[in-house]
Amino acid sequence: MKVTVIMGSKSDYPKLEDAIKLLEGMGVSTSVRVLSAHRTPKELFEHIEKIDSQGYDVIIAAAGKAAHLPGVIAAHTLIPVIGLPIKSSTMDGLDSLLSIVQMPQGIPVATVAIDGGLNSAILALQIMSLKYPELKTKLKEHRQQMAEKVLEDDKAIGK
Amino acid sequence: MKVTVIMGSKSDYPKLEDAIKLLEGMGVSTSVRVLSAHRTPKELFEHIEKIDSQGYDVIIAAAGKAAHLPGVIAAHTLIPVIGLPIKSSTMDGLDSLLSIVQMPQGIPVATVAIDGGLNSAILALQIMSLKYPELKTKLKEHRQQMAEKVLEDDKAIGK
Amino acid sequence: MKVTVIMGSKSDYPKLEDAIKLLEGMGVSTSVRVLSAHRTPKELFEHIEKIDSQGYDVIIAAAGKAAHLPGVIAAHTLIPVIGLPIKSSTMDGLDSLLSIVQMPQGIPVATVAIDGGLNSAILALQIMSLKYPELKTKLKEHRQQMAEKVLEDDKAIGK
Amino acid sequence: MKVTVIMGSKSDYPKLEDAIKLLEGMGVSTSVRVLSAHRTPKELFEHIEKIDSQGYDVIIAAAGKAAHLPGVIAAHTLIPVIGLPIKSSTMDGLDSLLSIVQMPQGIPVATVAIDGGLNSAILALQIMSLKYPELKTKLKEHRQQMAEKVLEDDKAIGK
Amino acid sequence: MKVTVIMGSKSDYPKLEDAIKLLEGMGVSTSVRVLSAHRTPKELFEHIEKIDSQGYDVIIAAAGKAAHLPGVIAAHTLIPVIGLPIKSSTMDGLDSLLSIVQMPQGIPVATVAIDGGLNSAILALQIMSLKYPELKTKLKEHRQQMAEKVLEDDKAIGK
Amino acid sequence: MKVTVIMGSKSDYPKLEDAIKLLEGMGVSTSVRVLSAHRTPKELFEHIEKIDSQGYDVIIAAAGKAAHLPGVIAAHTLIPVIGLPIKSSTMDGLDSLLSIVQMPQGIPVATVAIDGGLNSAILALQIMSLKYPELKTKLKEHRQQMAEKVLEDDKAIGK
Amino acid sequence: MKVTVIMGSKSDYPKLEDAIKLLEGMGVSTSVRVLSAHRTPKELFEHIEKIDSQGYDVIIAAAGKAAHLPGVIAAHTLIPVIGLPIKSSTMDGLDSLLSIVQMPQGIPVATVAIDGGLNSAILALQIMSLKYPELKTKLKEHRQQMAEKVLEDDKAIGK
Amino acid sequence: MKVTVIMGSKSDYPKLEDAIKLLEGMGVSTSVRVLSAHRTPKELFEHIEKIDSQGYDVIIAAAGKAAHLPGVIAAHTLIPVIGLPIKSSTMDGLDSLLSIVQMPQGIPVATVAIDGGLNSAILALQIMSLKYPELKTKLKEHRQQMAEKVLEDDKAIGK
Repeated sequence: MKVTVIMGSKSDYPKLEDAIKLLEGMGVSTSVRVLSAHRTPKELFEHIEKIDSQGYDVIIAAAGKAAHLPGVIAAHTLIPVIGLPIKSSTMDGLDSLLSIVQMPQGIPVATVAIDGGLNSAILALQIMSLKYPELKTKLKEHRQQMAEKVLEDDKAIGK
Repeated sequence: MKVTVIMGSKSDYPKLEDAIKLLEGMGVSTSVRVLSAHRTPKELFEHIEKIDSQGYDVIIAAAGKAAHLPGVIAAHTLIPVIGLPIKSSTMDGLDSLLSIVQMPQGIPVATVAIDGGLNSAILALQIMSLKYPELKTKLKEHRQQMAEKVLEDDKAIGK
Repeated sequence: MKVTVIMGSKSDYPKLEDAIKLLEGMGVSTSVRVLSAHRTPKELFEHIEKIDSQGYDVIIAAAGKAAHLPGVIAAHTLIPVIGLPIKSSTMDGLDSLLSIVQMPQGIPVATVAIDGGLNSAILALQIMSLKYPELKTKLKEHRQQMAEKVLEDDKAIGK
Repeated sequence: MKVTVIMGSKSDYPKLEDAIKLLEGMGVSTSVRVLSAHRTPKELFEHIEKIDSQGYDVIIAAAGKAAHLPGVIAAHTLIPVIGLPIKSSTMDGLDSLLSIVQMPQGIPVATVAIDGGLNSAILALQIMSLKYPELKTKLKEHRQQMAEKVLEDDKAIGK
Repeated sequence: MKVTVIMGSKSDYPKLEDAIKLLEGMGVSTSVRVLSAHRTPKELFEHIEKIDSQGYDVIIAAAGKAAHLPGVIAAHTLIPVIGLPIKSSTMDGLDSLLSIVQMPQGIPVATVAIDGGLNSAILALQIMSLKYPELKTKLKEHRQQMAEKVLEDDKAIGK
Repeated sequence: MKVTVIMGSKSDYPKLEDAIKLLEGMGVSTSVRVLSAHRTPKELFEHIEKIDSQGYDVIIAAAGKAAHLPGVIAAHTLIPVIGLPIKSSTMDGLDSLLSIVQMPQGIPVATVAIDGGLNSAILALQIMSLKYPELKTKLKEHRQQMAEKVLEDDKAIGK
Repeated sequence: MKVTVIMGSKSDYPKLEDAIKLLEGMGVSTSVRVLSAHRTPKELFEHIEKIDSQGYDVIIAAAGKAAHLPGVIAAHTLIPVIGLPIKSSTMDGLDSLLSIVQMPQGIPVATVAIDGGLNSAILALQIMSLKYPELKTKLKEHRQQMAEKVLEDDKAIGK
Repeated sequence: MKVTVIMGSKSDYPKLEDAIKLLEGMGVSTSVRVLSAHRTPKELFEHIEKIDSQGYDVIIAAAGKAAHLPGVIAAHTLIPVIGLPIKSSTMDGLDSLLSIVQMPQGIPVATVAIDGGLNSAILALQIMSLKYPELKTKLKEHRQQMAEKVLEDDKAIGK
């Protein structure tokens, strides 16, 4: 189980920390990289080539503003790419959302919510569970824990 | 290789036809359903239960307006759900895009472009290729064909 | 006079506090719950079933982001559902507003303003006044108090 | 069972026709009026006064652009007002939606989807069912018919 | 020279303070009121009637959210109404801007920028200068002062 | 009574025809010009200079896309400028609306609705009525006619 | 004087035809290509490498939806890249505009209006006039012709 | 190598400081001015005339709200104008972006990202490198430094 998490800028890291922790807690080997589609294209393409040959299962790509990173990666590999739009401009994240989700015909990016770091990891796990069925149990437990958290809140607040 | 394609309304069908054809052309067994999260919740939940027990690999859910279908399905299964926003109101599809992609923490939906039917199928195939590596060759060929189509256009128009 | 207030997350509570206080001040028996359409669907459906059998008059459902809660509830009951969009993402609440108000044909949700907690309670009271005409007097008084508050401000600031 | 349907302009009528038909089909006595908050305020206020004294249960108010009609009516009565935003400008209906739903604290309007005429009638019926429980059976049947319509589509298209 | 400044809520006052000061500094007699189209319609209409009979020249109406105040006033008088959209919701003021500017055919509101208090006063003065030509000199001076302020900034920063 | 109507492009003319007809029908002397702030700035400034010296009362300026025309004119005169945003791009008119209404402090433009040609004329007449009180009667009649038109529609459709 | 015009899809061609004609009419040698950042990245990068070595002065890149083409090209060359957003989805072009203009720090794209093909060519000519001053005369003539066109319209419509 | 940086308001300066520093660090002679298209049009036009005669190569124009400055300048010169939209209203910068980028046919403005000061300088340098090829080496170094900065971040965070 191998996932590479690529972010376009160091400033995206805090929004991915939970995601990386969850992946590792589930036993996934993760490679975390800061690589920009615009500022370090050469290093990005070198990394993408390795991704294909080194058996990565899923790619998580996070970027803000005109967020080309997920789409550019998706154009160079057949491994599923999860796109995470980051709010990092004066806009509310709509620029990065549209830059990621509105991909042209042929090259999809599996887009999650703006700043939805944790969901990018859960989606990666759900996808990998096709190949590693043992993940299903762990995901079920994780979902159960989330439900219990809500039910606790319900107990505290509800009446 | 089994995919179920669920649409919220019969009127979404034309935007999914290419997707279904591609899936079947790639040898994927597809179950196509018209089921509404709001108008036929009982039948929808019956279908979701079967999805889990009958070995489906991926779910494609298409809906317009306040498009709850993909998220509601995702809440009831651990199988990856691909959400396809459909333009079906006076708005340009932003209502369905936001209703699908902005899922709360814990329950991701892998969202593709508004009216991007074909991409929902390609993403499903990329995800299934983790489990069925033979799909990689077919996807590579499909991508090659798309590239050739662009290069033909380039020959016709370019100078 | 019975209202159930359901919120998708504990963090929505501060935006509902005034609403709950007003309902109770008007003599309405209120049941307050934290239940998520996505994270605790089972418990949510159990609660909805009780709503129908236990004589609730109106449901207030508050949620943020891709706010499916009001619509999902509305699909399972004929009791009027008031939807309260909560700003809880990087967006200004447009995601939850559209996810709640743009319901497909057949299943309406009575939507109020983003973060408009108090208005959700007043609307519930106006709806219940069809059955409990005594509420009309109380609502008239409440509206009178609001008017007096404006007139006081007018005295303080006006010239 | 009495509902008054008020539209700001004759051009809104086609988007309300189904709604009026449904209300009348359910045995509701309906008064249909074309009255503008801006162009005929005097006549509008005369009608609102009658609404209160003549025992109307619910008001449906439809308007486009800067759609003040529902809010202005709501300010003059305690009867529940359902606001129906109509697309009637170069914009996609967002102007009328925001003008109707974003009501200030104290005066709610129960807003439904842009051009969602039928839903305004269904919501009116659900609200009236608090006072006229016999409507519940009719609404259940109506909902059943909608479900059957979807299931027929499912049979025709599904596989 | 008489202007009445009407705001929908006391909280709008800070955004009008400069405007009122400018009007009074220019020798305009101003009546400042806090009156809500929704919460105090009766008092609002009483005030509008006086406006017409007491020789007011221009009305400035400021409101936030679903800002009906300027349009409702404009429907009841032929005196020019200047609409000032106030940001007072989770949205960036687009709700009040559209609610004010998108008036239907027949009843215009002269709309200025969101939170553009000072401009509402300058526009009022420009309009009144048709009747009171002496204002032209004062406005020219005011504009000259603004220009000098920019030129000072230019000196400080420019190079 | 003199109004100059300036449009940025010949294609805006159909959206101003009613306005010009109304102004002339009310006895206003109108000068109609096609002058672009960007393509014919010299001729525009020559016209603006004449406006000031030839006793024009109000300026109506219509433009689409990045609609600078009304603001640029307003910067060169103290005569009230009414800005009419025209939908003339792929966008729904929001580009021209924001370019016209969001004027910086000091130079207001009295903005009316997108494609709201007739309202620009009515606003011009309301402004001129400060100086030419005889217009009040004509405006009252015009408003009366509009009201009667609505009441006829009410008779035709209402029940 | 050499410009390369690159479009992401054959369907963008009609929106570039005028631009290509203008460039060629001004004596610019143009290379026109259909190359997709996503579907033919290899061929795109081969073309970009040639651009640098073969003395191109400016690049015009047109694309729709999540329009990465201009930004991806800009990341691989120091030649100025003009980005032309094309409306080609259900959205009004905002997706392509934001994907092109909101480039991260370090890699600018000189963005023009949505579907503003001709302006992309004029901007290219203005940029090249730094190196080829003879273009200034031609651009002045072109601008003069545009002005005359407006003045003809002014004569036809103005009064 | 001469660039003039014009901002509409002193408050835009902090967003241009880096840009000015970069230009000067690259040996570009810069003239920095605070001049408003609306408040100091006379001084602006005087400056534009000098720009043409004093051999400036590129103009950078920054403005907020209804940002006419870049377009107005572009209408008066053939020198390339780079438009920098500044967030300076309650909106997220969309008002200034659209006011700058959506220029009508004939007069382009090379628009960069909202608050993207540094990119306006880099684009100016790329444009000037057509005439001053020595800039290419400096730009290559600058880009290399940016890449190294990313690679350092990659080392610090990556794993």
